[in-house]
Amino acid sequence: MMTDIEISRAATLRPIADVAADLGLPDSAVEPYGRHKAKLTVSSDTGRAPGKLILVTAINPTPAGEGKTTTSIGLADALVRTGRKAVLALREPSLGPCFGTKGGATGGGHAQVTPMEDINLHFTGDFHAITSAHNLLAAMIDNHIHWGNALGLDPRRIMWKRVLDMNDRALRHVVQSLGGVTNGIPRESGFDITVASEVMAILCLADDLADLQARLGRIVVGTTRDRRPVTAADLNADGAMAVLLKDAIKPNLVQTLEGTPALIHGGPFANIAHGCNSVIATRTALSLADYVVTEAGFGADLGAEKFFDIKCRQAGLATAAAVIVATVRALKMNGGVAKADLAQPDLAAVRRGAVNLLRHIENVQQFGVPVVVAINHFGTDTAEETAAIQAIVAERGVEAIPCRHWAEGGAGAVELAEAVAALADTPSQFRTIYDDALPLQAKMERVATAIYRADGIAPTPAVVRQLAEWDAAGYGALPVCMAKTQYSFSADPTLLGAPVGHVVPIREVRLAAGAGFVVAVCGDVMTMPGLPRVPAADAMRLHADGAIEGLF
Amino acid sequence: MMTDIEISRAATLRPIADVAADLGLPDSAVEPYGRHKAKLTVSSDTGRAPGKLILVTAINPTPAGEGKTTTSIGLADALVRTGRKAVLALREPSLGPCFGTKGGATGGGHAQVTPMEDINLHFTGDFHAITSAHNLLAAMIDNHIHWGNALGLDPRRIMWKRVLDMNDRALRHVVQSLGGVTNGIPRESGFDITVASEVMAILCLADDLADLQARLGRIVVGTTRDRRPVTAADLNADGAMAVLLKDAIKPNLVQTLEGTPALIHGGPFANIAHGCNSVIATRTALSLADYVVTEAGFGADLGAEKFFDIKCRQAGLATAAAVIVATVRALKMNGGVAKADLAQPDLAAVRRGAVNLLRHIENVQQFGVPVVVAINHFGTDTAEETAAIQAIVAERGVEAIPCRHWAEGGAGAVELAEAVAALADTPSQFRTIYDDALPLQAKMERVATAIYRADGIAPTPAVVRQLAEWDAAGYGALPVCMAKTQYSFSADPTLLGAPVGHVVPIREVRLAAGAGFVVAVCGDVMTMPGLPRVPAADAMRLHADGAIEGLF
Repeated sequence: MMTDIEISRAATLRPIADVAADLGLPDSAVEPYGRHKAKLTVSSDTGRAPGKLILVTAINPTPAGEGKTTTSIGLADALVRTGRKAVLALREPSLGPCFGTKGGATGGGHAQVTPMEDINLHFTGDFHAITSAHNLLAAMIDNHIHWGNALGLDPRRIMWKRVLDMNDRALRHVVQSLGGVTNGIPRESGFDITVASEVMAILCLADDLADLQARLGRIVVGTTRDRRPVTAADLNADGAMAVLLKDAIKPNLVQTLEGTPALIHGGPFANIAHGCNSVIATRTALSLADYVVTEAGFGADLGAEKFFDIKCRQAGLATAAAVIVATVRALKMNGGVAKADLAQPDLAAVRRGAVNLLRHIENVQQFGVPVVVAINHFGTDTAEETAAIQAIVAERGVEAIPCRHWAEGGAGAVELAEAVAALADTPSQFRTIYDDALPLQAKMERVATAIYRADGIAPTPAVVRQLAEWDAAGYGALPVCMAKTQYSFSADPTLLGAPVGHVVPIREVRLAAGAGFVVAVCGDVMTMPGLPRVPAADAMRLHADGAIEGLF
Repeated sequence: MMTDIEISRAATLRPIADVAADLGLPDSAVEPYGRHKAKLTVSSDTGRAPGKLILVTAINPTPAGEGKTTTSIGLADALVRTGRKAVLALREPSLGPCFGTKGGATGGGHAQVTPMEDINLHFTGDFHAITSAHNLLAAMIDNHIHWGNALGLDPRRIMWKRVLDMNDRALRHVVQSLGGVTNGIPRESGFDITVASEVMAILCLADDLADLQARLGRIVVGTTRDRRPVTAADLNADGAMAVLLKDAIKPNLVQTLEGTPALIHGGPFANIAHGCNSVIATRTALSLADYVVTEAGFGADLGAEKFFDIKCRQAGLATAAAVIVATVRALKMNGGVAKADLAQPDLAAVRRGAVNLLRHIENVQQFGVPVVVAINHFGTDTAEETAAIQAIVAERGVEAIPCRHWAEGGAGAVELAEAVAALADTPSQFRTIYDDALPLQAKMERVATAIYRADGIAPTPAVVRQLAEWDAAGYGALPVCMAKTQYSFSADPTLLGAPVGHVVPIREVRLAAGAGFVVAVCGDVMTMPGLPRVPAADAMRLHADGAIEGLF
């Protein structure tokens, strides 16, 4: 069997200029980055009727794997294959994790975006630009304090850390500015991975350059001793940060193995941020195609909810249809089967685990979005198991369609494409799950009860106070961003299936005033990964001809 | 008068593909990055007779400014204007300093390389790739210790820091790995600016991908408790680092305002490293043109010496001619005039200061390289002052030619171009100033006495011991890289002119086994700059159309 990278290398890619030309883009809108990548400078106002937005989401992730990205790619390829004009809108992978555990984030098998090595490494430099912009603000904070601290920033209350796109646990907590007078005032700080930067979330939610700069200016970096917020604009950092991001804000055009256009742009964390590609890329895609297939992080409880309640709300986007990806293996795990036993047929376990899928279906339907289930096929799946899933969801009036895009490319997802297009072509009534006017704490309560099916939330007293302060300070109209474990509907990662009777703790809240949301931290959140005992980097080599060994 | 950025924006740039085509490059060798930048994948073995290498260097820098980069650009434009096939080979600017004090590093007036905003910002991402490769090694060091430290690295003796391309004094000294068991073993560390990374020096000295990977593997990151060196190869980091640099190693093609091709690639520090563009770019340029104009950092005592003794030695390059840039203003400063008084004519001061120029001329001639002096013209220069310089250097058989490329572009440097071409076309006898076989300490002594005209060196006892150890361990054949103040021939920055009777202290030595040199630290060396009280970043804005305000 060919590996992903072998399949990718065997593909004949079209020149990216041809892919752009098929989309009707003039040469002037396409900035090539090598032969198979380009940045687009197109306005989203192309005069075409906007396309239909299709979200690919999933059940709660398990170690068995679901395949949201491959399903997104296979679906887009199949839409094109069935004569439709479709474009993908996906997230950019983070560089750091490539060197930790094996595997990039460009799909797999015959459902891949290419060139996979470039996309997984530096790509067009967007994340490096975000790293620079983030760290420039950090340097300007400490520089301001060093030269007299005219704004009265409290060095103990600086929330803005630094970032690197690297898995580096040694940087999680540091004491900085040591070494004497010329190096500033010592204080505790640390580093996050770049995808956790608020600058990443801002870039992905900004409408355009002007909105980008305005959002950067609203970033709250810390407070004064009397708790007044100090912003990036107060430090005059917003303009220079925007300058560093002037190219990063342009969406990147690549293609799938089958030549379907893919806009890959931005990639915020899905826990402390909203976890989907940029608004600019989505809008651009909608202006160029009839169907836009996009993806949200984690399961639908986190990813789809944030996609709807943060991204669609802020950008005024309506979602026409959603695909929930499930696998027989993952449903078995939700039904209590251990990972080692997943290859054994177990119809009862599939039926038990299907409660997880059913709840995600109901949840997505609450947003007024019609749903189809994609059963991402594995070789060990039996016909009976697949049929059982289909029968269970059919009781809710939902179709579940087996897909073989991993093995067959777009040809393996034609039936899914027809079903999705039929749903998307039917007028729907997209809505968010809460109104802007609801106070912040009530918004968290609403998500916890309506989506997680918890009995309620348990914020600490400090959280309650803080949220009331932010409501009063004018931040109350922001949506909330729940940072909860992705493995369960509850805050306990071991509670699979469809747990009830649980309560969602809110341990801490964070204001992302530039991105435009308030983060509710419901458990341990890791924003700087470490490398494993034997990192993937150990086995990587570069051959004399430039070929990479060991990256995937 | 138009500003640099106004002149740059008013220029009509040729498509970079046309610039490449004029060089005889096939499409397959050119990877576009936007419309006006490209990476070249050309082999330097084009079958053409190699061109003549012309080094542009200078007297000791003063706050008056000399103009090495503008002279390099003007000279190359003038060589083309006089019917010759010429290519520039220059360093890439560092991003961090753009946000500190105003000004990029792409020339000025009518002698600029373009697009200046791109070149000064992220350009084609080379420095970001170097940052990633450097920090991956750092993460792998701490990860190795965290998971059991099988190699027995002494955490107190790790020399490998981290880097960022940012002026950030707060990161000079940190204590890292705080916060408990999962974050590793706390230790002191710090950050340098990216241009100070040994990875930068390695990229700039590597012959090709295979040599790059081999050099990365030779990096010594620290020692065991019993002082055995531990390398990047011991940590299995060399392959992954090379993977991160696979595109960064390709030279970047841009053009001057007049359309002259320019390869801009790499930019190591000129104190703790050798301060010139990559060997690959220089070799590529020599394979494409009859004359290649390149530049070395600081004055000729540091820049030219390292260019000859490190870069030309390692790469087997011969220099055909050298241009020493001087200004009337800078010679006046060397003659004792204060900066505020430089606009006043002062023939006596020019004559006194000319001793600095004369010594640099003698020094470059010691390498067997013929010299011409470029007097970079300023509006306040008088005809008598210029004539005085010409008369003084004529006594040594050297020509000094006034140049007006800043105001006039290549047309202002035609006379210089004719003189340089005549020198370069005459066979010369390039030689280094010391042999590989000389022990390390003797090499330092040789540079100090022959070039700095010191009475000798004063190494600390620890330095003497360390150098003897390295001689014995097989590092003795490496060249030495002197990290001395650029403002004086001596180690005292206030001794202008042509000081004698001084002694050069060697406070510390550092092994750059991957780059292939031993650094002698002769004074305070700053490898992480800070931002000034009012950083240039304060005034930067991005307009809605993407135009940058305040960068230059």
